[in-house]
Amino acid sequence: MDLGMVGLGRMGANMAQRLVRGGHRAVGYDPGAQARERAAQAGVDAVDSLQALVAALSAPRAVWLMVPAGQAVDDTLAQLLPLLAPGDTVIDGGNSNYKDSVRRAEQLAQAGLHYLDCGTSGGVWGLSEGYSLMIGGDADAAERLRPLLETLAPTPDRGWGRVGPNGAGHYTKMIHNGIEYGLMQAYAEGFAIMQRKAEFGLDLHQVAQIWRHGSVVRSWLLDLSADALGRNPTLEGIAPYVADSGEGRWTVAEAIDLDVAAPVITASLLERLRSREKDSYADKLLAAMRNEFGGHAVKAG
Amino acid sequence: MDLGMVGLGRMGANMAQRLVRGGHRAVGYDPGAQARERAAQAGVDAVDSLQALVAALSAPRAVWLMVPAGQAVDDTLAQLLPLLAPGDTVIDGGNSNYKDSVRRAEQLAQAGLHYLDCGTSGGVWGLSEGYSLMIGGDADAAERLRPLLETLAPTPDRGWGRVGPNGAGHYTKMIHNGIEYGLMQAYAEGFAIMQRKAEFGLDLHQVAQIWRHGSVVRSWLLDLSADALGRNPTLEGIAPYVADSGEGRWTVAEAIDLDVAAPVITASLLERLRSREKDSYADKLLAAMRNEFGGHAVKAG
Amino acid sequence: MDLGMVGLGRMGANMAQRLVRGGHRAVGYDPGAQARERAAQAGVDAVDSLQALVAALSAPRAVWLMVPAGQAVDDTLAQLLPLLAPGDTVIDGGNSNYKDSVRRAEQLAQAGLHYLDCGTSGGVWGLSEGYSLMIGGDADAAERLRPLLETLAPTPDRGWGRVGPNGAGHYTKMIHNGIEYGLMQAYAEGFAIMQRKAEFGLDLHQVAQIWRHGSVVRSWLLDLSADALGRNPTLEGIAPYVADSGEGRWTVAEAIDLDVAAPVITASLLERLRSREKDSYADKLLAAMRNEFGGHAVKAG
Amino acid sequence: MDLGMVGLGRMGANMAQRLVRGGHRAVGYDPGAQARERAAQAGVDAVDSLQALVAALSAPRAVWLMVPAGQAVDDTLAQLLPLLAPGDTVIDGGNSNYKDSVRRAEQLAQAGLHYLDCGTSGGVWGLSEGYSLMIGGDADAAERLRPLLETLAPTPDRGWGRVGPNGAGHYTKMIHNGIEYGLMQAYAEGFAIMQRKAEFGLDLHQVAQIWRHGSVVRSWLLDLSADALGRNPTLEGIAPYVADSGEGRWTVAEAIDLDVAAPVITASLLERLRSREKDSYADKLLAAMRNEFGGHAVKAG
Repeated sequence: MDLGMVGLGRMGANMAQRLVRGGHRAVGYDPGAQARERAAQAGVDAVDSLQALVAALSAPRAVWLMVPAGQAVDDTLAQLLPLLAPGDTVIDGGNSNYKDSVRRAEQLAQAGLHYLDCGTSGGVWGLSEGYSLMIGGDADAAERLRPLLETLAPTPDRGWGRVGPNGAGHYTKMIHNGIEYGLMQAYAEGFAIMQRKAEFGLDLHQVAQIWRHGSVVRSWLLDLSADALGRNPTLEGIAPYVADSGEGRWTVAEAIDLDVAAPVITASLLERLRSREKDSYADKLLAAMRNEFGGHAVKAG
Repeated sequence: MDLGMVGLGRMGANMAQRLVRGGHRAVGYDPGAQARERAAQAGVDAVDSLQALVAALSAPRAVWLMVPAGQAVDDTLAQLLPLLAPGDTVIDGGNSNYKDSVRRAEQLAQAGLHYLDCGTSGGVWGLSEGYSLMIGGDADAAERLRPLLETLAPTPDRGWGRVGPNGAGHYTKMIHNGIEYGLMQAYAEGFAIMQRKAEFGLDLHQVAQIWRHGSVVRSWLLDLSADALGRNPTLEGIAPYVADSGEGRWTVAEAIDLDVAAPVITASLLERLRSREKDSYADKLLAAMRNEFGGHAVKAG
Repeated sequence: MDLGMVGLGRMGANMAQRLVRGGHRAVGYDPGAQARERAAQAGVDAVDSLQALVAALSAPRAVWLMVPAGQAVDDTLAQLLPLLAPGDTVIDGGNSNYKDSVRRAEQLAQAGLHYLDCGTSGGVWGLSEGYSLMIGGDADAAERLRPLLETLAPTPDRGWGRVGPNGAGHYTKMIHNGIEYGLMQAYAEGFAIMQRKAEFGLDLHQVAQIWRHGSVVRSWLLDLSADALGRNPTLEGIAPYVADSGEGRWTVAEAIDLDVAAPVITASLLERLRSREKDSYADKLLAAMRNEFGGHAVKAG
Repeated sequence: MDLGMVGLGRMGANMAQRLVRGGHRAVGYDPGAQARERAAQAGVDAVDSLQALVAALSAPRAVWLMVPAGQAVDDTLAQLLPLLAPGDTVIDGGNSNYKDSVRRAEQLAQAGLHYLDCGTSGGVWGLSEGYSLMIGGDADAAERLRPLLETLAPTPDRGWGRVGPNGAGHYTKMIHNGIEYGLMQAYAEGFAIMQRKAEFGLDLHQVAQIWRHGSVVRSWLLDLSADALGRNPTLEGIAPYVADSGEGRWTVAEAIDLDVAAPVITASLLERLRSREKDSYADKLLAAMRNEFGGHAVKAG
């Protein structure tokens, strides 16, 4: 089956390549020449404009967007819309806010286009291990993409599904990432406690390896942690600075909107914010207050 | 190789059975006749006293305790000690506090006995899938048990190891369980948010199944959650009441002792306490305060 | 000085009454006849329409809104705008979202009207003790209200101020309420721990009274808590159910938007959500998971 | 009335001085010559040994310990005990762990001595404003100290009381400090959010001053914060490093022991630990994990 892939960054290029390996034809576009070249070497039909991409696909087309969430999606859609024809399907495989996806689906429906919001998990390992795909939107539109989805997923019958109407795909992915924050933080804290417990001289890589087999905490994130700890057990050279890309914030906001207390996902997000605060005003004020009432000396900073 | 198993509850009986299946001889003791019978049916040489258990093993003996953490371990050791001979090894495979294990190891060493504290993970699935085993204590003593450990673990070379001196095994298991609390809570929160989001009509079992393959959050706990959600997606009939068995508390205390902030593991524990508070005095006082300053009506309770 | 008060609920009526006591003239409007009557008895010139209210004031007018935050403010403004004249000033003294206040100020400026967003704290005690007032908007417009503000505040020179441009008043009040959540929760937790510690038989009212004088934790909220505990030390008849009115949520969202970790204010909000969850799906799933991996019995629910 | 004060640090010297000002006689001992001299200048009968202190008091004696919690209390008691006579009373006014106080009271009772554990709040301001005193122990023994307590407290009838049997005084003070952590953190977070909100250019000292009068969040800690912000609004030169002196940890441990969820007090403690972690292993591991699964670059550190 044919697919147009818009955005040939790490995720888009890998997905296109996995499709090509699976016997599909992937036409790919990216504004960057280097990204196009790399994709071409991987068997993707790389073209240098959206016009060329659309022209290279026969109707009804399937165009997959793998561009940064936010304005880039709207901009791309604005350029694509005049080029597409009723019956075509656009899939947003990025980490868009689900509310944007609901809005965009309505916008495209007015032009007779199908829109699918597809939460995509798997990261850089998806190329070899397949992607977990959560799709929101019209069931028939999703069904027509079955050959592609069966190739992108780990196995034809595993790891993908249409989970609900438009928005449901990115909603599910948002929650997925919220959970991911919590899982990561739980492991990070556990290893940090063991690292601090000098008296036992624990080999954290060994511990991770033991846990990977038979333990209640075995998981893919543990597998990855074991790899990281194997290569660099002291985590030398890595700054204690943790970025976040939005879904955690959205999950926290969503939980509060729904009156669901989600203390662990919330704490995971706050910890990431905290990791980036090098000069906390709150902590300074705490030190100042202790000095005020108790005469406790403040540390000069 | 021969092993004496003291305690033929769910964990002890399963471990003895796995050893028997692996070609070892397991002599088992439990004060309960029913437990002994069940173990006997599984091929364990069930005896009705510690004396009989010790007598049935040839020196140097290996006696594995699988009894409830706390006083039961001390009581069992008090009975066992006079029966054992220098060179014998006692393994505590339960969830003992690591500080107790350090103390007990010193106590047994004075009698010329080896003591190994072995954190054991795997739950009821360990019988079929093997156990993850984290061992603290003398390396030679652990090495002598290798044939048993290779059978108990998922495969001979995976999922077990001697991680450090006495205490290190139970310490590692304590941290394991702290992490487990955090992981569980992260999933629980994520599914709870999706459950509350009625408009998407998400099928939580389907979502769990999709995530099990290719996603960043795939894990054994997710596999189990998928099973639970498959059988009972609304979790009908299950009270929102979460017990805890101590290791989470110890992990929180340990983190604080070491000056390590572990907000997610801590929040997971507090959530369990909270699940059991049906009539929170704190919440009543909050309602009363709101009434005091703002005239906000309290709900009658 | 003359003031028009729109909304004669608990807060609006009390503020109007305090102004009257202070020698000002307060014209008041409320859609409810009972509210108007009560205000009239307190010396307020109660009128039965916005038209009448505006007509009763001489230009340049000062009209204070004390209506529920949200749509009610926009609706009231829509009705007021055609009645007012350039140079008049509208003050929103409610708990509006600061972003709405910025928007409304721009809207009124186009009609030549001044808009002040005034965060108002003090609750039902403001009538006797005065209100704490944080004002956002044009400094000259605020200055013209000085006589009113000096009467509303605890003393002419204490407890009020123009803190910044439009939005700053409600922003400051939002943060005030976020802090309030944290303070309340801290006290509530402390008293809850003491209440649970049965062995000391602590008299919580006595403890609160002792702390009110000379201690580091003395505060007005503690004074109120002492009152509540004096009347009802067991908090009998009060449901453990804590409402929230929005500012806490906004504070949490704002903190996250600004990348400031605010764990205590956040935890206070989550605790309120939690107090209203009688049948937590998350907790049920935790119980189900424990059953899955460990065979731990679930409580029937 | 006569009192012996052991420990003439900031707290002990001030308390002795307040007693002297109130017409009592205070005999004071401190191992440091400078501390003794300062106390002498304030009217305290400073002596250079515990023997001299005991000798200077007529039986039944009242000896108040104001020494660092922990070993110093036990050491002092060990020296004092042989010097005292049945019927004498020892008061521990420091921040001792309440379990130690229960133990010490039993120990002294065997020698016919009374022991009172007295939680003392008020900090460096107690000299001028009086101390809040929470006393645990025998009611008659406490009653005999009434003249001293009425002088130490803010007014004779305010701010002090016997709250329960031995241990209850320090227990109440422990909870007081746990609450204090939560209150401080709530203010600190609120001010930190406002400080970050550059667009409003808020004057945090002004905001604090406004809130001090009439607002729901008015408190003594706010008064102190206003002072600190008045002198140093940017908190220049103060390191974001917050010490803790034990009671917060004990409160958290106690809450967990009692199965009371205390998320805000707990979060306040964790934030203090966090303020001292300059190189969090947990955060490094999070960054490493993000790199593993998503190829996200780590910051060099």
